[in-house]
Amino acid sequence: MTSITASEHFIQGLAGVVAAQTNLSAVNGIEGELIIAGFSVEEIASQAAFEEVAYLLWNNTLPTTVQLDEFRQSLIAQRALPGATVDVLHATAELRFPVMDALFLAAGTLNLDMADKDSLQQATAVLARFPVIVATYARLLNDQTPLTPRSDLNHAGNYLYMLSGKTPDEEQVRALETYLNTVVDHSLNSSTFTARVITSTGSDLVSAVVGAIGALKGPLHGGAPGPALDMVFEIGDAGHAETFMRQKLERHERLMGFGHRVYRTRDPRAEVLYAAAEQMYRRSGDMKLYMLAREVEDTAVRLLAERYLERNLKTNVEFYTALLLHGLGMSNDLFTHTFAISRAAGWIAHIFEQRRQSRIIRPESEYIGVRNRRWIPLEQRQPMEFAR
Amino acid sequence: MTSITASEHFIQGLAGVVAAQTNLSAVNGIEGELIIAGFSVEEIASQAAFEEVAYLLWNNTLPTTVQLDEFRQSLIAQRALPGATVDVLHATAELRFPVMDALFLAAGTLNLDMADKDSLQQATAVLARFPVIVATYARLLNDQTPLTPRSDLNHAGNYLYMLSGKTPDEEQVRALETYLNTVVDHSLNSSTFTARVITSTGSDLVSAVVGAIGALKGPLHGGAPGPALDMVFEIGDAGHAETFMRQKLERHERLMGFGHRVYRTRDPRAEVLYAAAEQMYRRSGDMKLYMLAREVEDTAVRLLAERYLERNLKTNVEFYTALLLHGLGMSNDLFTHTFAISRAAGWIAHIFEQRRQSRIIRPESEYIGVRNRRWIPLEQRQPMEFAR
Repeated sequence: MTSITASEHFIQGLAGVVAAQTNLSAVNGIEGELIIAGFSVEEIASQAAFEEVAYLLWNNTLPTTVQLDEFRQSLIAQRALPGATVDVLHATAELRFPVMDALFLAAGTLNLDMADKDSLQQATAVLARFPVIVATYARLLNDQTPLTPRSDLNHAGNYLYMLSGKTPDEEQVRALETYLNTVVDHSLNSSTFTARVITSTGSDLVSAVVGAIGALKGPLHGGAPGPALDMVFEIGDAGHAETFMRQKLERHERLMGFGHRVYRTRDPRAEVLYAAAEQMYRRSGDMKLYMLAREVEDTAVRLLAERYLERNLKTNVEFYTALLLHGLGMSNDLFTHTFAISRAAGWIAHIFEQRRQSRIIRPESEYIGVRNRRWIPLEQRQPMEFAR
Repeated sequence: MTSITASEHFIQGLAGVVAAQTNLSAVNGIEGELIIAGFSVEEIASQAAFEEVAYLLWNNTLPTTVQLDEFRQSLIAQRALPGATVDVLHATAELRFPVMDALFLAAGTLNLDMADKDSLQQATAVLARFPVIVATYARLLNDQTPLTPRSDLNHAGNYLYMLSGKTPDEEQVRALETYLNTVVDHSLNSSTFTARVITSTGSDLVSAVVGAIGALKGPLHGGAPGPALDMVFEIGDAGHAETFMRQKLERHERLMGFGHRVYRTRDPRAEVLYAAAEQMYRRSGDMKLYMLAREVEDTAVRLLAERYLERNLKTNVEFYTALLLHGLGMSNDLFTHTFAISRAAGWIAHIFEQRRQSRIIRPESEYIGVRNRRWIPLEQRQPMEFAR
């Protein structure tokens, strides 16, 4: 039994309360460190295939050749979507639903063919199908015919193929895998915590994943990386960067892509994605855009330090995420879903971990309302001020 | 700003941690008290219409005649299900899905026609449609044609009608309303907490409600009331009650319907439902069954006190829930869904309350894994023990 030191006072946002012990990831905001299952994000993100990182999180060990091959084959075999999932995607595309809402709804339908699957098969099916759902939906929204998954491509490569219809080259697949590995887990954020609360009641894997998507949909859960890139495009030329951002700061506007709730130094994920973006852009990308982004970053960090030195506003993960995913041909409205495709592996790892705890997550509330109200028959009631 | 007293230690299940301040309900397990928006459950449950209690929770005041009429009309007007919701119910009925899984999936589709609704309209639509979803699905599972909602019946009455095809009498509607009012809110249980976490990210109402259903599906979240009644049927005759239950206790089996995590006295909800069941059964029910249940209760409480005096095992809400809902013609597999039909009003009230907080709910995790792992190329890895 773990010793319990509960607080009797309301703790807004549960800030600082330790709600789980985990082997999966650790964040040190002061030092700018992110550990993924024992590896620093710098050590693992650019070397591992995404399937290796998912396997690592689910099993706490890297796979051998045989294990990795088996896991890859299992993912490939489960990519096909149930008919009801495809129906939901068509219905939501007709309504021009945001991609995130479509993913939320479609993920729920994955339970339709889970009944005879064991826990690992369910997890593998959910992970395998997220990119298929997003790519299918993205094509429906663009009035393109959805594509059939290709069993000769890995998780990242098949996603890029199903989005564009073009076979991605090795550099592109590597860049996407580095991104997916970088954002796969990040301690107990709200979506991961939601998945753990739902799991703690003994509920099923799909319910927990759907709940997590529901939380990720909220605008306070991290941000959308799109606006960081929009600013780079708006600046357009390195020569305008300083004037543009100075004016923005004068108007007390935020510079998107800078500053983080936890990190007080450059987000370690930004470091990894910066290197991955550089490699990809140098080989085949729009180097002018890349160099402009670098210039914008340098100028932004300098101006922010001038103005808000004590706040340590440094480049966050969104800035290079946007640059990297844009370089892979993705439109802004796919950035959060590509994040979800990665984070699904982390959510599932937390679901497995939570299942080894026997205890339901059930905090207390403090009642601050009135007491001893007496019933008043309907016809004797006086109108009161509307109090919602 | 509220003062923060965070714990640096892992708190299993967040037991004793205050994660929200609320005007909605309070539980005092020692005294056996349940407050619903200022009223004791005994004061309000058997007097109010369910629509009045939902209005009270959402507005912190009882409605006047005009307000209640407007709210009732708004509920009635929103009962019709979107086409996609009906499609999902047909698809899941073909697969013989459990009702709770069908409700989970169908609730997600409610977002399909929410785009042009304001927050109150969304809430009203969700509340209005839960009983329609459950009754439609129950009839599909029984190979019966689903019925169209009847605008001359209130929330509880229309649910009973849509289940059975018969117009319920006043006593039956009153009994169901008393049940719905009794279980509408119960402080920060796991499903309510899930709804608040999802809402805290800025996500939408349907996402939060779907997450709550996902948590309610878990077997550790309260129990299913069915088994309590099964035991009464198995006993069959009051003369067998003591022998039957003594043998069960000798085998260290649980007596379903007795004992509660929080209440150390008779669950106040059991008191209210006992009175409601008595009233209903005396008028029109199977009095023999009712008297048998009373006898089983008395005997169970006596035997439990003999055996586990210090544990204070008293009748919980499930025992008379099962008796009451059975008396209303519902089968065991509808008990949890009827609970969800009621609790939806509580979840929505908590969603409204959480929205007035600006802070995301995001606790911490404690990393207990290894550090400084170094990358090993695939071909050099040794098989390790499977560690999930």
